[in-house]
Amino acid sequence: MMRSQALKIALGRTSRPGGQVGISHSMRRQLATGSGSTLGYEPNYSHMPKFEPKDNQSTPGVDTALHESSSWSTDALNTAIRDHSVFTWGPSDAIRKSCVLAKRAEGVYIYDQDDKQYLDWCAGAVCSNLGHSVPAEIQHAIQKQVQELPFVYGDFYVSEIRARLCHLLAQISPGSINGFLFASSGSEANEAAIRLARRYTGRHKIMSRSRSYHGGTSSALGITGDPRTWAVDATISGFVKIIDPFPFTFDWGSNEEEMVERSLGALHHQILTEGPQQIAAIVLESITGANGWMMTPPAYMQGVRALCDEYGILLVCDEVMTGFGRSGRMFGFQHFDGVLPDMYTFAKGTTAAFLPLSGVAMQDHVFDYFRENPTGYGSTYSAHPVCCAAAYATLQHILQIDLVEHVRSVEPVMKAGLERLVAKHPSVKAARTTGLGGGFDLAGKDGNFLIWMHETSPGLALFKQAMMDNGLVTLIRGHHVHCTPPLIITAEEIEEGIEKLDKSLDVLDEWIMAN
Amino acid sequence: MMRSQALKIALGRTSRPGGQVGISHSMRRQLATGSGSTLGYEPNYSHMPKFEPKDNQSTPGVDTALHESSSWSTDALNTAIRDHSVFTWGPSDAIRKSCVLAKRAEGVYIYDQDDKQYLDWCAGAVCSNLGHSVPAEIQHAIQKQVQELPFVYGDFYVSEIRARLCHLLAQISPGSINGFLFASSGSEANEAAIRLARRYTGRHKIMSRSRSYHGGTSSALGITGDPRTWAVDATISGFVKIIDPFPFTFDWGSNEEEMVERSLGALHHQILTEGPQQIAAIVLESITGANGWMMTPPAYMQGVRALCDEYGILLVCDEVMTGFGRSGRMFGFQHFDGVLPDMYTFAKGTTAAFLPLSGVAMQDHVFDYFRENPTGYGSTYSAHPVCCAAAYATLQHILQIDLVEHVRSVEPVMKAGLERLVAKHPSVKAARTTGLGGGFDLAGKDGNFLIWMHETSPGLALFKQAMMDNGLVTLIRGHHVHCTPPLIITAEEIEEGIEKLDKSLDVLDEWIMAN
Repeated sequence: MMRSQALKIALGRTSRPGGQVGISHSMRRQLATGSGSTLGYEPNYSHMPKFEPKDNQSTPGVDTALHESSSWSTDALNTAIRDHSVFTWGPSDAIRKSCVLAKRAEGVYIYDQDDKQYLDWCAGAVCSNLGHSVPAEIQHAIQKQVQELPFVYGDFYVSEIRARLCHLLAQISPGSINGFLFASSGSEANEAAIRLARRYTGRHKIMSRSRSYHGGTSSALGITGDPRTWAVDATISGFVKIIDPFPFTFDWGSNEEEMVERSLGALHHQILTEGPQQIAAIVLESITGANGWMMTPPAYMQGVRALCDEYGILLVCDEVMTGFGRSGRMFGFQHFDGVLPDMYTFAKGTTAAFLPLSGVAMQDHVFDYFRENPTGYGSTYSAHPVCCAAAYATLQHILQIDLVEHVRSVEPVMKAGLERLVAKHPSVKAARTTGLGGGFDLAGKDGNFLIWMHETSPGLALFKQAMMDNGLVTLIRGHHVHCTPPLIITAEEIEEGIEKLDKSLDVLDEWIMAN
Repeated sequence: MMRSQALKIALGRTSRPGGQVGISHSMRRQLATGSGSTLGYEPNYSHMPKFEPKDNQSTPGVDTALHESSSWSTDALNTAIRDHSVFTWGPSDAIRKSCVLAKRAEGVYIYDQDDKQYLDWCAGAVCSNLGHSVPAEIQHAIQKQVQELPFVYGDFYVSEIRARLCHLLAQISPGSINGFLFASSGSEANEAAIRLARRYTGRHKIMSRSRSYHGGTSSALGITGDPRTWAVDATISGFVKIIDPFPFTFDWGSNEEEMVERSLGALHHQILTEGPQQIAAIVLESITGANGWMMTPPAYMQGVRALCDEYGILLVCDEVMTGFGRSGRMFGFQHFDGVLPDMYTFAKGTTAAFLPLSGVAMQDHVFDYFRENPTGYGSTYSAHPVCCAAAYATLQHILQIDLVEHVRSVEPVMKAGLERLVAKHPSVKAARTTGLGGGFDLAGKDGNFLIWMHETSPGLALFKQAMMDNGLVTLIRGHHVHCTPPLIITAEEIEEGIEKLDKSLDVLDEWIMAN
């Protein structure tokens, strides 16, 4: 009845033309076939499939007592997850079975229902940079914002916290990087950067590295260079992959100079053949993150910047993983002398993952263009005040404790630990770290990668189980094992992690030797 | 130094092949051109543009005193926004000048720096369903989660709050809608639904309405049918727009029956010509939101469901705006007897916008497929525990106060108010509302739409200014003015809003008559 009421109030003053009644089926047949018809064509008027109604009103109904009770049994929690929760990326049943049912967390540790302790060796998804105890002032900032002004839509209202946050970001960012557009996820930030680059340049192609990850939405995944990009179904044009300076299957040369000259030459060749005036941007992680923590040679990055300048291409650095201290510098691109991107994208560490906030930072020349021209990107939760408050307090905290310096101070401990693993374990092919952005590649018996990035292996499953048994959880992508703990980790906790890995790798060593 | 250290620890046991030194430029020339060469081809070895370094280390430095001070002057806030904040969708300068600098909020009101009161007539972006005072128990839930377990990555750990939330959603959702995948924004939810539909069906085309909005990321914007979709640069294939049952420029017939028969016939024709076996899903708002709050005829929706069943196409209802009470039912699709979607997407009202959370709900047959098969979608902040806590407490609150019933009880007040506006103002062409999802279309002197959806008008600017002066802020898209206040609004507050609109429309009446 509600519905029919709604239909009835076609409140318009201009009534429908004429008093014309519905044309009946038979009348229409006559019109189409009769001698008076100028058309001589008759469609299938009523060839509609039959509607099979389903009940869309009845619900199981809310079990109020259960939902108001302060504690659920482990069984009840596991059942709810099994019956109602879909997992991301992979098949839900398999992922669910490998998950830890987390009860609480403290520092770099997460505890399950039985109070078993797990060392979080990958900082969530390389985002929980301050670990799992939220500093009091960040808690307070969130609470205060929730009380005063939880939400305003950012194109109608400006919040004070948004003003403060973008001002602080400008003070942290080098050069003329002064403009900040906010979103919620790293994917959205990269989508926005792509949109802005296209609108700014009037060009449509985007180049990115063939070893990279930029997010799960269509364009962010489209520019991604790992097996997850295969999920975008090839429906998007305009994305061109750079043959990576770190290929899986060959060496560019016998030393860094040759590698840089040839891989840059390959990029230059690609630009010339794709059409320099078609290319809006090169989007890249200056230090490859999820795809293997590889430190790009400075001369390569400088060459990319020079090519961008030569051909009017924007350089966009994806700082979603590296931003705000992960690499031992405030931003990853600051490792490369003289290389300043036109835009950088940020997420994860910006709020230490306490709440979702991301964004695009841009130099003045880009910002100025969008003062006068539409960005064509938007999101309900752009500059969400509570998320801005979390970011503002997190960044202030990071500066206050000098997190970047702490990362530099423990980096040698991580390096030494990784060197020991490489020296000892035949299943470890190589390891690297820049700050606390690092990891190691797994090897098979022949010393080659254990598997490609899209493959799995029974040995890997054994290794994962061993880590779980030893109380360590980390991110593995193909043959790469992440060593990216919360940035607040102490030297002792790093040693503890290396020891747990050491024990777990024994299992994999044994497996590769037997297979 | 850090960087070069990082490069040095190529810790691999397998050293680079041979002791081979770099090939010099002249050596390569000899190889390519010399008599020994089998290639006879020589590239431009060193045709690289010169690198022009820029300072990427120096920053303005953080003004600690300023950022630690508890209050900033209005001037300081405005300057920070002007110098550092990029706005969404349109040109930043113009949007900034029309924005309210918000200081605090209470109920349905937002207050600026001078304590001027604005009635939030569009609930932020049709999302602040509980207004701007966060109920105590929701504040508490957020705070508790921040303290106990602020973040875990959802493919490694399962949080208790995620288990509770998906269980509650299953109890609220009708039929066999039992599986829930989480993300942060409505855009991400629709991106995920598109990905899932493609993977489930093995088909790639997605059909959507030509009057619709589904989000700002590439695929969500690609299926959108309003001028914002023009920003996606036509780089995505596989999206087919349905000629809307509510076209701008013609009538499908002279009554509802003809309209439904012909527009459904048009959809059927499109399905047959696009290729039924190519179409993965039809994604639609059962009640059109941002594009004009039009109530779809039930027979049309039933026909869409029947066509989907006939051809194995999934029906996805975008409930981002309509979900959780906006329309006077829990979900928008519940207005259509017997129509149950295969999936629905949700965001906005799920948390009343207090924090960002979104997701995809799916029937068992879809969920079961993804138990065994990868979804190919993921996001760092999927099932973010603090955001889940906000959603869980918000949904419990909505049920407790019976928000849906409240919406039904004030709907007649909104309807009567809108009828008065239509009757009185020549600049109002027509108005409609379903629950508190409604608005009116602006007319010019000739009774036609004042402007198309992508146009603007000096009269509209005057109308906006008048609303601002009268202390009301709402969303206008083209010729459509949203009347979508927070759902907790009282009858008296609705009357107040209608009165403010009444006064503001006098200005537009005058302008259209003079132009």
